Parts: sequence; C-alpha cells; structure tokens
Amino acid sequence: MFRNPSLLFTHFRHFRRRHHHHHKLRHRFMSTISHTLSHPIYTIWAANTGLGKTLVSTGIAASAITNPPSTVIYIKPLQTGFPLDSDAGFVYRKIPQILHHRNTQLSLLASNQTLNASLPAAKSKLGNDFNQNELSTKNGFGEIGFSEERKVGGENGCELICKTMYAWEEAISPHLAAEREGAVVADSDVLELLKKCLKIGVGGSNKGSVLSLVETAGGVASPGSSGSLQCDLYRPFRLPCILVGDGRLGGISGTISAYESLTLRGYDVDAIVLEDHGLENEVPLLSYLRNRVPVLVLPSIPKDPLDNLMEWFDESQSVFDSLKEITISSFQKRTERLHEMPKKAQEIFWWPFTQHKLIPEEKVTVIDSRCGENFAVHKVEDEGCITQMFDACASWWTQGPNAALQIKLARDMGYTAARFGHVMFPENVYEPALECAELLLQSVGKGWASRVYFSDNGSTAIEIALKMAFRKFLVDNELLLNIPQDNTLDSRIELKVLALKGSYHGDTLGAMEAQAPSPYTGFLQQPWYTGRGLFLDPPLVSMCNGVWKITVPRNIHAKDVILEDTLTFSSHEQVFNKSRDDSSLASIYSTYISDELLLSSGSTKSSHVGALIIEPVIQGAGGMLMVDPLFQRVLAKECKIRKIPVIFDEVFTGFWRLGVESAAELLFCKPDIACFAKLMTGGVIPLAVTLATNDVFKSFVGDSKLKALLHGHSYSAHALGCAAACNSIKWFKDPQTNPNLAPEQKFLRELWDTEVVRMISFHPAVKRVVSLGTLFAVELQVGDDDAGYTSRCATSLLEKLHEDGIYMRPLGDVIYIMCGPCASPQVCLRMLNTFYARLGEFWQGKIQNAREVQS
Amino acid sequence: MFRNPSLLFTHFRHFRRRHHHHHKLRHRFMSTISHTLSHPIYTIWAANTGLGKTLVSTGIAASAITNPPSTVIYIKPLQTGFPLDSDAGFVYRKIPQILHHRNTQLSLLASNQTLNASLPAAKSKLGNDFNQNELSTKNGFGEIGFSEERKVGGENGCELICKTMYAWEEAISPHLAAEREGAVVADSDVLELLKKCLKIGVGGSNKGSVLSLVETAGGVASPGSSGSLQCDLYRPFRLPCILVGDGRLGGISGTISAYESLTLRGYDVDAIVLEDHGLENEVPLLSYLRNRVPVLVLPSIPKDPLDNLMEWFDESQSVFDSLKEITISSFQKRTERLHEMPKKAQEIFWWPFTQHKLIPEEKVTVIDSRCGENFAVHKVEDEGCITQMFDACASWWTQGPNAALQIKLARDMGYTAARFGHVMFPENVYEPALECAELLLQSVGKGWASRVYFSDNGSTAIEIALKMAFRKFLVDNELLLNIPQDNTLDSRIELKVLALKGSYHGDTLGAMEAQAPSPYTGFLQQPWYTGRGLFLDPPLVSMCNGVWKITVPRNIHAKDVILEDTLTFSSHEQVFNKSRDDSSLASIYSTYISDELLLSSGSTKSSHVGALIIEPVIQGAGGMLMVDPLFQRVLAKECKIRKIPVIFDEVFTGFWRLGVESAAELLFCKPDIACFAKLMTGGVIPLAVTLATNDVFKSFVGDSKLKALLHGHSYSAHALGCAAACNSIKWFKDPQTNPNLAPEQKFLRELWDTEVVRMISFHPAVKRVVSLGTLFAVELQVGDDDAGYTSRCATSLLEKLHEDGIYMRPLGDVIYIMCGPCASPQVCLRMLNTFYARLGEFWQGKIQNAREVQS
Repeated sequence: MFRNPSLLFTHFRHFRRRHHHHHKLRHRFMSTISHTLSHPIYTIWAANTGLGKTLVSTGIAASAITNPPSTVIYIKPLQTGFPLDSDAGFVYRKIPQILHHRNTQLSLLASNQTLNASLPAAKSKLGNDFNQNELSTKNGFGEIGFSEERKVGGENGCELICKTMYAWEEAISPHLAAEREGAVVADSDVLELLKKCLKIGVGGSNKGSVLSLVETAGGVASPGSSGSLQCDLYRPFRLPCILVGDGRLGGISGTISAYESLTLRGYDVDAIVLEDHGLENEVPLLSYLRNRVPVLVLPSIPKDPLDNLMEWFDESQSVFDSLKEITISSFQKRTERLHEMPKKAQEIFWWPFTQHKLIPEEKVTVIDSRCGENFAVHKVEDEGCITQMFDACASWWTQGPNAALQIKLARDMGYTAARFGHVMFPENVYEPALECAELLLQSVGKGWASRVYFSDNGSTAIEIALKMAFRKFLVDNELLLNIPQDNTLDSRIELKVLALKGSYHGDTLGAMEAQAPSPYTGFLQQPWYTGRGLFLDPPLVSMCNGVWKITVPRNIHAKDVILEDTLTFSSHEQVFNKSRDDSSLASIYSTYISDELLLSSGSTKSSHVGALIIEPVIQGAGGMLMVDPLFQRVLAKECKIRKIPVIFDEVFTGFWRLGVESAAELLFCKPDIACFAKLMTGGVIPLAVTLATNDVFKSFVGDSKLKALLHGHSYSAHALGCAAACNSIKWFKDPQTNPNLAPEQKFLRELWDTEVVRMISFHPAVKRVVSLGTLFAVELQVGDDDAGYTSRCATSLLEKLHEDGIYMRPLGDVIYIMCGPCASPQVCLRMLNTFYARLGEFWQGKIQNAREVQS
Repeated sequence: MFRNPSLLFTHFRHFRRRHHHHHKLRHRFMSTISHTLSHPIYTIWAANTGLGKTLVSTGIAASAITNPPSTVIYIKPLQTGFPLDSDAGFVYRKIPQILHHRNTQLSLLASNQTLNASLPAAKSKLGNDFNQNELSTKNGFGEIGFSEERKVGGENGCELICKTMYAWEEAISPHLAAEREGAVVADSDVLELLKKCLKIGVGGSNKGSVLSLVETAGGVASPGSSGSLQCDLYRPFRLPCILVGDGRLGGISGTISAYESLTLRGYDVDAIVLEDHGLENEVPLLSYLRNRVPVLVLPSIPKDPLDNLMEWFDESQSVFDSLKEITISSFQKRTERLHEMPKKAQEIFWWPFTQHKLIPEEKVTVIDSRCGENFAVHKVEDEGCITQMFDACASWWTQGPNAALQIKLARDMGYTAARFGHVMFPENVYEPALECAELLLQSVGKGWASRVYFSDNGSTAIEIALKMAFRKFLVDNELLLNIPQDNTLDSRIELKVLALKGSYHGDTLGAMEAQAPSPYTGFLQQPWYTGRGLFLDPPLVSMCNGVWKITVPRNIHAKDVILEDTLTFSSHEQVFNKSRDDSSLASIYSTYISDELLLSSGSTKSSHVGALIIEPVIQGAGGMLMVDPLFQRVLAKECKIRKIPVIFDEVFTGFWRLGVESAAELLFCKPDIACFAKLMTGGVIPLAVTLATNDVFKSFVGDSKLKALLHGHSYSAHALGCAAACNSIKWFKDPQTNPNLAPEQKFLRELWDTEVVRMISFHPAVKRVVSLGTLFAVELQVGDDDAGYTSRCATSLLEKLHEDGIYMRPLGDVIYIMCGPCASPQVCLRMLNTFYARLGEFWQGKIQNAREVQS
C-alpha cells in the first residue's frame, strides 16, 4: 500500500476532521474527580501490547485475595476483541482455579460484569438474546449489564469483583474499534464511570483488606476510545502504577521509554515487572532506575494455549507476593506521608503573607497534584480521599493552562532542561530567550517596545523599570549634567514617582518605595520604607446594583460639578469607550493632574517626578480595584507631555488576565516601559520581563560599562522560563488551543454570565462587583471596623466554598474567583451559581447573628 | 526460569558490581566534542528493534546520493551479530543495486570499512586470515581495518562511504555482547571515533552536497557497549533525529514513548517514519504531534528473505525523497537561524550588566545547547561547526550538575511540571516544597535553623533576611514600644546594617542599601541608593608568590603592631584553623569592631546597627575577595553579644561552591539567618531560600496578620524549583553521584592542582590568586588607571582562552575559572595549564607593547 505525498496530505485532513470531532467530546463538562484512600488502587500499564498485563493482574489478585482473605476489585475500563477477549473474564475464571489448585480452604464470592458494549460486541456476547430494540443504548453502546457470579465455600471468605466498563468487538486499538463500530465514549464519561467503579469496596461490610486494580489497554500511550492517549486520559486520578515491561530483545528501550512517558505525566511508578527472555533486561533497567524502583522478573510464560498456567502461577507466586507487598507498603507510605504533611509544614515552613498563629493544623491544605485548573487535595474525612478543587485564586494569579496544555508544557520543560539547563545570558544568545523576546515584541510590545530585559519576578521587573525610567528622565530633561563626575550620591536631585493610591508593585524595597503607604509598607514590615512618590487618589469603577458606576474622590472635583450621566454605564464596554475622551470628566481629570504635578515640582527645584507607574485598569493586590480607564489615559497623556516616562505594571493584568492580551489595549495608549510576569510562563515557573522603547534603551548606551544598566539576576532569561513563556504566549492567543478565542478575535469571550453577575451585584451582602476577563471579584458589605486587608469577615463563606470544591484566598474583605484564559464558561457559571447560593446562607447567618446580639 | 526473592537480590548485587565497572569507563577524560555544519548529519533512531532502521537509512541514502550527485556517509557505531549482520554492508551492497535498478547513468564510488571488532567477531570475519598475534588489539578489540571498495562508471559521480565503528559477534544488545566477548568500549572512545568519522566529507574535493547518517542499534534507550543508554551516549553531539516508528498494533504507544525519550534528552526529532500495517497509526501520531513533526508511512515490507526489495524501494521512493528533503530543509533552517541569531540578539535583547556598545555582532556567542558543564556553541569559521566550550563562569555561578545529572534533572523537571505545575504555597503543603525544606534544615541549616522562607533569587532572599533581622532586633532590644500604634513611619528610629566593603548582596534597592558605595550603586544606576550601613574595610587573604597572606587595612591596626607570623600561611587549611582565635590578631580585630560599633551608635540614640550581613569567606561580585575568616568569626561573635542578628549571605558560597556544603562550616559559627540560591537548584531555575532560627520566626508570631512577614512572590516555593533543589542537594553530597566526595567526607577533594596554582601565583602578570573549592580566581597586575570593575585589561587573554574552549567572563581585572562540585580534577588541571600557557603569552604581549610605547 504505497502512500504518495498527496495521500499523506489526505491523512492530515483526515486527522483534522477526526480531531474536531473528538475535541467536542473532550471538552464536555466534567464533574469532580475523586477517589478513596481507604485501600490501595493501582493501575496496571504495559510498555507494549501482549506483554502479559492480565497475567500480572491475575497474579497480584491471587496473592492479595487469600492472605489475609480480602476483596479484590478488577476493572478493565476499555476492552476490545470482546467477547472473545475479555480480560475481566480471564481474571474471573483464573482466580477460582488458582485457589482450587493451591488447596486454600477459603470461600470465594466472584462476580464478573460487563457494563457497556458496542452493538456488534453486544450482539456477539448476547447471541440469540440480542434485541437492539430492547437494549438501552447511548452513543452507540448498549447497556448490556451482562453479569455472572459464582460462590465457593461458606461465608466470610474472600471476594473478587470484575468489571468491564466498555467493550468493542474488533481486536484493535479502542480508538479504531470505537470509530468502526460507531461507539465512541467521551473521556469524561470514562472518568465518571471509573470513579463510580472505584467506589466499590469503600465502607462495605467486608472489613478485610481491599485492593483495586485498573488494567489499561495496549501500551501506556495507546489511544483510548476518544483518541486521547490513555496516559493522558486517566491522569486526573493519578493512580499509582505498576508497569509491565518487555523482557525481549529491544525491550529495555521500550520499557524505559514507557516509564518516561508515565513520569512525564506526573505518575508514580512503584514497580516494574517483566517476563524473563534470558536477556537479563532487568540489569540495565535497575541501573537506569538507580535501584529506586524495584524490577521483578517473571518466569517465561508457556506459549501453549492449552496450558492452564497453574504451574506458571505457582512458579511466579513469590514475585506476585512481592508485588502485592509493594502495593501495600507503598500505599501505607503514601497515606502516612499525606497525614503527617500538615504538621510538618506548620513546623518548618514560613509561609509568606501568613500569620502562622491563625492557621491550625487542620486548616492546612495538602495538595497532592494539579491537573489543569484543579488541585487534587487530600481530605482526611471518612477513610480519606483525594479530591479535586478548582484553584480559584489561580495560585496567586499565575495559572493559565488547562490539563492538556499542562502536559505539553511539562514535556517542553523536560526538553528544555535537557537541552539547555540554564545558560549564561549576557553577550550570548540561545533559542528560547531569542524566541521569547521576539514573541513579546510581536505581542504585548507590538507597536512601541523594541527591547526586552529579563528578570525573575514582578518586583525585580519593577525595580528595573524604575531604573530605566529615571535614567530616561534625567537624559530627556538634561539633568545628567548636574550629577558630579565621581558618580556619588547627589543630594541636589530627588526623584519621585507619580503613582496611584491602592497600587501595589512588589515587595522589594525599590518597588515598595513606588507605592503609597499601606499595611505592607509600615515600619514594622519595612523600616527602610519612606514612600518616594506623589500618590494620587484615583476614581474607581465597579458594578453596584446592576450598574457600572464611577466614584470620583472629592479632591478631584473640588471645583467642578460632575454630570451624573458621565458616571454610570450599563456595560463595561461603555466604560472603556474611547469617546469618553471628549467628556467634561476628561477635562476635570486633566486639570486635576496638571495642578497636582505643578504643586509637587513647584515646591523645590531639586524634586522631580521622574516616572509614572500604574497598574492599567485593575489594581490587584490593592483589592481588585478597577480604576477609571479614562483617568489613567489622561494621566499617561499628561506625563508624556512633560517627558515623564510612563511605566505600565502589567505583572497582574498582562496576558489575557483582563480578557485582552495586554491591558494597555483597554486604555488605548502605549507606555514607554512595561513589566510582565505571572501568566506569562503559563503558571509554571518564575520569569519576568521589562519591555522598553528604543529611546529608553538609548539612554544607557555609551562608551563605559558604568553607563550600562547594572542590574541582573543569576538566572536572567533562564531557558526553562523562556520556553514556558514561548508556549503559553502562543497557546493563549491561538484559537486552536484556546477555546475562548474566536479566529481573528482579540477579546476572550465573556466567561462570567452577565445575568448572574448582575444578580450578585444586587445582593445586600455585596458592596461592589468587578468582573472583567478572567477575574470576578466582590467586596463584601462589612462594618467599618472589619474592613480592609486584615479583615477576616469572609472566613466562614470561604470555608463553605472550600467544601464545595472551590479554593479561594481573600484579600481581606475582597474575595475573588479567577480562572485561566482557556477556562470553560460552564465551569465559571457553576462557580458563580455556587457562590451566589453560599452568599445567601452567609448573609442569613450574619443577620441571625446580629439579631441574637440585639436581643 | 523462576526467580525467587533471593535470586532477585543477586541481580541487585550483580548490577552494582557491573555499575562500578562502567562508572570508571564513563568518567574517563574526554576531549572536546564538535561536529561540522558544512552538511546535514542525521541520527536514525527506532522505537524498537526490527522496525527497519537500515532500510530507512538505505532509502534516504539512495535518494540523497543521486539527485544531485552527492556524497553519503553512513556510520554504524555499534554493530552486533557481526559479520552475519552488517548494516553498513547492507547499505554498501544495496545502493549500487538500487542505482542500477533505477538506470541512473551516474558513476559511483562505494566503500565499506569495519574499524574495530571483538576478537570473536574478528575471527568470524577474517576466517583463515585471523591471527590474534598479528592483530593490533585494545580493550578486547582488534583493529581489523577490514575494508572493501567498488567503483562503477567514471569520475565525478556520487560517493558512498560506509563505516562500522565497533562490531561484536553475538546478535544481542551491545552491552551484553561486549561483556560476553570481553570487548567493552568506553563512551568517550565511541564519541571520539564518531567525531573522527563525522569529519569525513568536510572540505573535501567533492564540492557536491554531502549527507551523513548515523544509525543507532536497537531502540532509542537500548544500552550501548558500556551500559549507557544510547540516547544518553550520543547526547553530547545532539544531532538531529529521524525516528523510525512502529506501525503495528501497540506501535502508537511505543513510537510516542520513544519520541518522548528523545525529546526528554534535548534532541530535535525532524521526522517520524513507519511501516504501514493497515492500522493508520500515523493518524493518532499526527494528532499527538499537532502536525508539527511530519509522519511518513512506508509500504509494507516484504517478509520473503529472498526478495531483493527493489520493488519496495521503488514504491517507497517518494517517501524517501520527502525524508531527504526534510533533512536538507531542516538543516538549512537550522543553520540560517544560527547565523541570524547574533544580529537579532543585538537588536532586541537588553543584556544585564552589559554595555551594548562594546559588543559587536561577532562577539555574541550562540549557545546551541548545554551538556553538563559544557556549552555547545556555534562557530562560523570554516564551514561552520558546533563545538564544546567549558562554562568556566558556571553561568553566573549557578552550575553544578554533570551531563548525567542534567538528564536526570530534566526528567524530574518534566515529572514535577506534569504533577504540580506550580501550586499556591501559603497555608498549603505539597511534596517538593516540604521535602526541600526538610533537606535544607538537615543540611545547610543543621544545628541552628528551624524555618524556611522561599523566594525567587538572592536579592529577594536578602530583602527578606533584612526584614527578619530588623524585626528580631527591635523585639530583642525592646524598641517595638517606640513605634507608634498607627504603624506609620517612625522618624525616631533609624536602622542600619553592619557590612563589609566589597560585599554585594543583589540589585534590588533593599539589598543595595546594605552594601557600601560601589560602581553598582551610583546615582546614575540607582538614584534612590543612600547606603544604610556601617561599612567596614575587611582584612583580605590571597596567595601571592606561593604564600597565603593576610592584608590588614591600616585603620584596623592603627594602634597595634601586628606580628608578621600571624599573617602568612603555607596552606589555606592554616588560614581556616580555629586555633587562630587565640592569636593577638583576634584581639586586635575584636577591639577594632567594638570601637566601630560604639562610634556608630554613640552619635545618636535613634540610630542602631540592626543586623550584621556578610558573605562568608568569599565576596564574589566584589572581585572574588577572600576575607580573613578569623575577622568574620570575631565580627559575628561581637554582634551576637550585642543582640544584633547575624545574616550569612551564602547565595554565592552555599552548596559546595567553596568545597564545603555551607561556607559557615569554614567559619565555625552559626548565623541567625542565612540566604541560599544559585547552586541550590542545580543550576536550572531560580529559587532562593532564607533560613532562620526559631527565635527569629517567633518575633513575627502574633494575633494580627499585620505582625506576619508580608513579603512574597507569586511563584513562592514553586514545585519545579523545589524539586530541582531536592535533587541537587542530595546528589552533590552523595559520593555515589559526586565523584569528588569520599564516603563520610565533608570536603570536596582538591580540584585545583596545588603546584600549578602556586606556579601561577609567582607569575609577574598576577597580583593575587584565590583558589578554594570550585573557585580559582586571579587578579591581574595592571596599572592603577585600568584597575577595578570597569577594567578591560583581560580582554585579549580571555579571547585566547575562548579559542581554547574555555568560556570566561571577567569581573574587571579579576578573572576566574569556576567548575561544579562534581567536576573532574583532570578537566580542571587541563584548564589551569591552558590558562598558565596563555598567561605567559599575554604578559609577553604587554611587555612588548610597553617597550614599543617607550621607544
């Protein structure tokens, strides 16, 4: 069958069609994934097809079920070649045989059930009983509910429960069988059903030990029914693994590669087992694994199909006993560790922004893993479980990728670490740094920036920005001549920033000096803080009672009367409308700013406002304050007129946080310098950049190194950060990877249901609402004595939402839900609704309390 | 063949023996790896054995050789089953057959050569000609130099050169064949010979195009002769790859896993090709690869051994033509990019600590990858090449891992990114952060620290340390009562640090304020710098003319005469000897420090020294200044007496940089607070920690969040950084992974040959030498007008060393070579010798110049 290039092209198109088809299936709304920790649950994977996964499952099951008498649950999620091939059926038949052969006197209750079968498979299985009209069918599957059961001996013995979740007739890969038999099951349905099956054996009457085994189909990266690779499909559960390796010639390579594919998805492989082919493949495997993962060797498997394998199972018994022991001991080790983690964390961590005295052990959240926007957390209730929570604080506003992108990012982190590690940046060039800089200048820097300065976090990016701005200001205003040649401190010039109250630019001293006094800047926190700025009170915007409203501080409009209709809007689009430039409010702003600047520099010739620094549109850490975009635009304009460089701190707002790639787009104006971090690396590692115009750069060019910008950190432009940034920048803006973007569209679709948001803004517990892009924030209505950053008023509300699977962290009386740029609007809606419901309870409770106090 | 547990144990021991054996082979001294960029060189890998790698090589060779007439070089580094199996022989025989079959009128010169064969293989090959005594043998190999050649047609046609580098007789994995036939070849020898073979076709008379193909053995992760996996073995070349995938049932998984194993080692896979088995495996492969890597399908391969395959090669021709085109176009794309990178970098990067005007395009180094401590850089000379350079500035002092550890670290970066990405730290706990904190407290924090505060880089770690120290000082000295309740700036208290001149703690303002005025702190650089410290001039130690000597600043011994014998030492061990505490010098130091502290606080009641901050032993950025450890010990003691918290800035010195895990060990004293970064993560990503005693922590505990330490960065304790740190901390201190540590030993072995170091210290071009742990530094003898940080005196010397493959970056007139804790002393010796030789030339040049100026 010869494929010429045009046929190859057909494959491409073919793939695209199929991809779209599956795409839909993969993105269906998914309920919370969780599984018990009451007993060990293992997944059996293999390096290739035909390596004896089912024999391994059977052997482990036989060891586990008898000593002591226990329950074994065997689950085969995807079975092809059915009913001729039925791995569950094999286990169901073999275990009684083995027990009989071993002369155990134990009783056994065994069952085998097939839940769904494609119609051809159902027909084969049911034979004459098959009647399509009587069968309950869904997506091409019949719920055949086939089930068999047998009982040997008396009560209180051991129990075997075998389940096949989905079966197809043809003995090929599930994705092909599903397509050919017209029975494709969505990933979410597989996970949902598996979750149900994993609940078997929890809290049952049988108080003996329980072991669950989930056997996959084919190799680790063989596609499941929807086309997703199985190692990706089952990832949300992240169950511990046993890998069946390959003992044949070439099998070392296949086994190592399969192991790497599993670890590259965050799985823990607790044991490798392989059939002996006389090649001692276990020796290089152990060397590779540095003896940290046990490698066990099974005797050669008889090839005669008539062999009942009893002798082989006898010979293999000690290996299977070892495997069983490994499952038990690894499970114990894992659960013990999960239990001790909160205490240990409390003892040795020093959490930032956290008063340790207020965090009792039981409030510490143990995060076992992340899958896209969900944490998998450990809960100790009942018999313990791992359950998902939505990371609604986006892990300090950094998170972007969904589960699929996370795995791709992980692969690229591995590649980049292997290719570059980190390499020296100054005077050098390497691909990830160059591509990252190119992408930045083509995206958030487009049309104004021409240089990229790398650093490690928002705070350092700001310090760099300030150094850039001040130099530019000194050059432009011809103040450099006033600096003595010996380059010492010149007390004749004092440089200040122009900044807004409520803004926040980071925790290092230079960044702190650029912000107005706040709880973060007190003497107790930073004795060196002085506040080197002219700090203005900005007009703020928020939604109250269904209307977007601007609140203008009194000192701005001291002299003027502001027309009410310039202050209220029915949608946030109107707030951002550029036609507001012609409003009377614009001239009020302009006059106010001019006056303030004059006042500030007028006092003394030596004091200058050398830079404007603002967070465009939203002041994050200040309490999700939305500043009137018109005010910020006028501010920037007034500064540009006076040759005061304009810095945009987009550390929080950049990269789609506010629904556009750069928040500057919402202001319709360009800065001279801008800082980015957080979302830029897709929420995986720290990296920050300060972008600058060529004019800014030029003020550092000269003959001496002393004129260069002498600021840098060891890992400047580290390859991993740059590679992560390259990926996320591209993925977030590509409609192929970001379902919230239509082609050619520069705005994310609305993620927060407008009606529910309006409804919430009417709630008596709510003072104001801000919803924009990926951010939904609410300031709670509290008494003045409990307002602000140190407020703990939201505690009870957040605890309830925590129970609902939404992980939030408040900014005092301001609470927020933040999602990634690729988040599903359905998930956002579910969260909004949950929030609204809990808000009602919360308010009732407050009223109740108030009444009790009164009476 | 049944394996009981005791037999399994035997395997473990067996492996260990073998491992040690190979260990030695792997660490042999290796000369510089390089390869040409005059023509494409591809490696042919496969997902498994028996997938038709040689057919693919042959097919590509046939396409490449004829159109236009070209030279194809085919190299088979490791061949087992020889001479019955000889892939080079197959290519050698098939190509003429194919050309004949295709009726090309081209002439062909074809040769086939086998370079080394194990004795059994040599015997089989040579038959009656075999005479062991006549054969030149080495490590069990005979240099059989077997060679055959044939010529078809006239001159100026195409040429085929086939080479087998090492051959074994048995048809098993090379590591087994090598062991069984007593002929193991070290990795370094394989690389050396491959480097030689890759030179064929460079600059030859044949001006037609050239293509080299290197065909591996078995699967991607199949062991080579020494036991190293082939994907690791060939990594130093990082040649682009063609992967032969698996078209069979289960083959999707194997192909994806093999692809992931290659990318997880930093390889670029430019194409995947697989045999059609009617399963359309290419469809899910393309979906997985998101169409970014082409997947080509070959027609089914005839199974009949008598088939001469001419028909199959005909049918496959278009696929092989495509593959050939891919090699050519990818190669062109790659070389074009390499050539444009310096210019682009110059246009859009803004390098830290770099005066762009001084860096012309040709001085920009293009780093294609890193392999352990070596960069692979692009050189444009001749026809262009990729060559290795030793990263002697340890990429701004961060690098530690060797090539093997780099790959392990990459694997763990992939795992951690897949498992966690980054998750929120405050109030939470997750494994990498907890393990990292545990390891830190058991290692560098042992015996004093009880809390770990995470941040992003040395500078932020220092800002945090200062905040901690000041709070502790205020609490201990009961000054908190003086702070007004409203928490505003209290002008009555001024806190200063006690620090040493020449110290450097980072570039953010808070860290800068803690250092004495320097080129970095001028008004031009940071207009906000004031220098909030009492800065003392420290006594320095260095080797001059073969002797370690202390230079004490005049103001320290103004009143006292210092005995000469307390100032000179024959080894650095003596400098660190604790018995010096009893010397007269110790009391001179003590008196001096007391006086200074009294003077400083005496002036005004409101001014306090609130913290001591020092870089223990070596002040890095200040110019690799070694401070008298006795002075620092006395300093810490005097501060502790006065309840002034002691901060050790170990950002540079920590984690074996100075030959011990923590430089505090060299001072024999413990700090209250210490900062670590750089080497901590194995030189891969930024992460910093500030360690503190429980007493320091307690001064932040209270009922209000305002009393907590309100400093944090978004990626606080990010999982990747913590995981990297866990690995490096363990590897560096484990004699199994760090060959420079003997078991139970707390010091690295001497890496810098004492005699050569002494010799260098006598050189007239050298002012002083410091060598300690992984650091070797030299201050050059220059005129006063060209001294210090801005000096460019070393430029010509560094350019020469650059040519020698040593990448260095100076600190003005101070130049240094820095290696990792696991570096080979042989490599260090080679660098010292090279340095010494170039130093001579450099000095001769200076003298010559001086003479010319005089005359």
